[in-house]
Amino acid sequence: MDPTPLHLVMWPIEAKIPRFWRGHCAFFQGAPSNTVGILGGSSADLSMWKRKSIVTLSLTFLTSSQAILIVWSKRAGKYEYSVTTANFLVETLKCALSVAALIRIWGNEGVTEDNRLSTTLDEVSVYPIPAALYLIKNLLQYYIFAYVDAPGYQILKNLNIISTGVLYRIILKKKLSEIQWAAFVLLCVGCTTAQLNPSSDHVLQTPFQGWVMAIVMALLSGFAGVYTEAIIKKRPSRNINVQNFWLYVFGMVFNAIAILVQDFDAVVNKGFFHGYSFITILMILNHALSGIAVSMVMKYADNIVKVYATSVAMLLTAVVSVFLFGFHLSLAFFLGSTVVSVSVYLHSIGKLQR
Amino acid sequence: MDPTPLHLVMWPIEAKIPRFWRGHCAFFQGAPSNTVGILGGSSADLSMWKRKSIVTLSLTFLTSSQAILIVWSKRAGKYEYSVTTANFLVETLKCALSVAALIRIWGNEGVTEDNRLSTTLDEVSVYPIPAALYLIKNLLQYYIFAYVDAPGYQILKNLNIISTGVLYRIILKKKLSEIQWAAFVLLCVGCTTAQLNPSSDHVLQTPFQGWVMAIVMALLSGFAGVYTEAIIKKRPSRNINVQNFWLYVFGMVFNAIAILVQDFDAVVNKGFFHGYSFITILMILNHALSGIAVSMVMKYADNIVKVYATSVAMLLTAVVSVFLFGFHLSLAFFLGSTVVSVSVYLHSIGKLQR
Repeated sequence: MDPTPLHLVMWPIEAKIPRFWRGHCAFFQGAPSNTVGILGGSSADLSMWKRKSIVTLSLTFLTSSQAILIVWSKRAGKYEYSVTTANFLVETLKCALSVAALIRIWGNEGVTEDNRLSTTLDEVSVYPIPAALYLIKNLLQYYIFAYVDAPGYQILKNLNIISTGVLYRIILKKKLSEIQWAAFVLLCVGCTTAQLNPSSDHVLQTPFQGWVMAIVMALLSGFAGVYTEAIIKKRPSRNINVQNFWLYVFGMVFNAIAILVQDFDAVVNKGFFHGYSFITILMILNHALSGIAVSMVMKYADNIVKVYATSVAMLLTAVVSVFLFGFHLSLAFFLGSTVVSVSVYLHSIGKLQR
Repeated sequence: MDPTPLHLVMWPIEAKIPRFWRGHCAFFQGAPSNTVGILGGSSADLSMWKRKSIVTLSLTFLTSSQAILIVWSKRAGKYEYSVTTANFLVETLKCALSVAALIRIWGNEGVTEDNRLSTTLDEVSVYPIPAALYLIKNLLQYYIFAYVDAPGYQILKNLNIISTGVLYRIILKKKLSEIQWAAFVLLCVGCTTAQLNPSSDHVLQTPFQGWVMAIVMALLSGFAGVYTEAIIKKRPSRNINVQNFWLYVFGMVFNAIAILVQDFDAVVNKGFFHGYSFITILMILNHALSGIAVSMVMKYADNIVKVYATSVAMLLTAVVSVFLFGFHLSLAFFLGSTVVSVSVYLHSIGKLQR
């Protein structure tokens, strides 16, 4: 959800998923969404549960491999490309994939009211909002570094977890049980603990303006995620590829603005694709697929599941990095991982007892 | 529960309650234990709840002030006295207080079957067991430092929390709910996190023998605590001051053995009270009163409540030390405190849902 400039990410914090624009495209969502409804009760439940599990695991896997690609590319050398151009290409790729999925669906089922691309002003008017929120957050991100250093910012980004939970409750009006709230606080604390390193205490010296900006950014990020879920779920019968297409169109527009604001000179002088490498292309592909996975999670699950998936991905990345790059795990990492694991357990227990 | 030699305790770890022999004396337990039973249902419940709260808060307060006394005395200079002689005096003081309480009770109620000091071999035969377990643990403590340094040992001591929970379940056959188990794991992790400092990662290099010894010591400590609760609760009508008297008599005996084994030369050459200061005497008084508080918690609550009280005391100590000694709190401390707080909350929630 957070398009952190990749070169700002540092270890052990670099395990914390930095993301390009993460949008919403149901690429493999070929089947019409009411297939499940046609099947009998428990079979439909099982099918839904399977889909939910598959998309959640996909998101976890893709997010982990994202962070690993970043570590790998950092080892290979410095980033020389413009992050905004990469973000723009991610949006464009996801948009193209949405259209490709739609063409397949039209071929199988014909054009219907639910899967036609044309839309009304009433429907489309809310689609620019998430993209605009991310743009504001991205621009703010360049100012927060006047008050907080990069590792400190990675720690403060865990506030996103709390803001997502609060906004999920307020905007989507879905209740979490007391135990699930406790689990959510633990998820935030556990992720932060797992990222602790000897210099983490600096974050406590963050000036007041830094805290305010961090909280505002967490709220923007949480609001964008929750609002996207609200948009996708508002019209359940509407094909998600159409919904994604419109989300991504605005994603492209706002990222084009970001290129103009942040990297205009570099693009004009050195070219749009300056500094691109094989790893850059892999990362763009990975981010586009992650965007699809996020979309699927929004469709079949919710923002809470997304937050859990990306948090667990952070821990997985650190463990995989031990084998791939010979990193050492700290005691804080083990303690934080235990807290996150207990949080996942409590979340599932809390659901049953709700 | 852990008679850590006081000079081994270090900050921020020194906030973790090192203790002399902690025994069991119900000093203020003047009223016969069946007073509560005479009162009506809800009033008796309320009275029991009040007592439970008072003894738990007393234990928390005494344990916090213990740690603060230790910091204070360390500032005043090095410890020159023999820890074993101080432990012996704590046991003797608690024994004397038990007898004093009994004399008052005899004056009020006369000597009865339940409050007479004389006992049977069948009743008294289990009393040496907790004292013997503590002695073994104390002696082992001198060997574990071949494998672990003092701050590392303070971290490993948090295993006591888990061992107490497991043995409480096995020996007292009292069930904890799933949520309470999760809370107990969080308590252990939270306490450890709160104690993290930049050199804590050393503990991960602890050799296998060190881990085995740490686990054995945690089991010994946990077993001694749970077994004491079993002894006290086995004969509910028996006056607790009598039970404590016998526990302390054996405590005195085993501490006398510890003096002979560890500090015989120092006591012979420099005298029993060598190196004692005003602070030493305050600490002995504090440890005796803490012993009484532990006993009350065993009587009116259980080992689980005791573990929570002493863990919360550790956090309180650190906060108080900020004001008293100008200590700084680390980010890890805030994260650990949050986990401990959530754990306390989940423990109480878990009780309701059991």
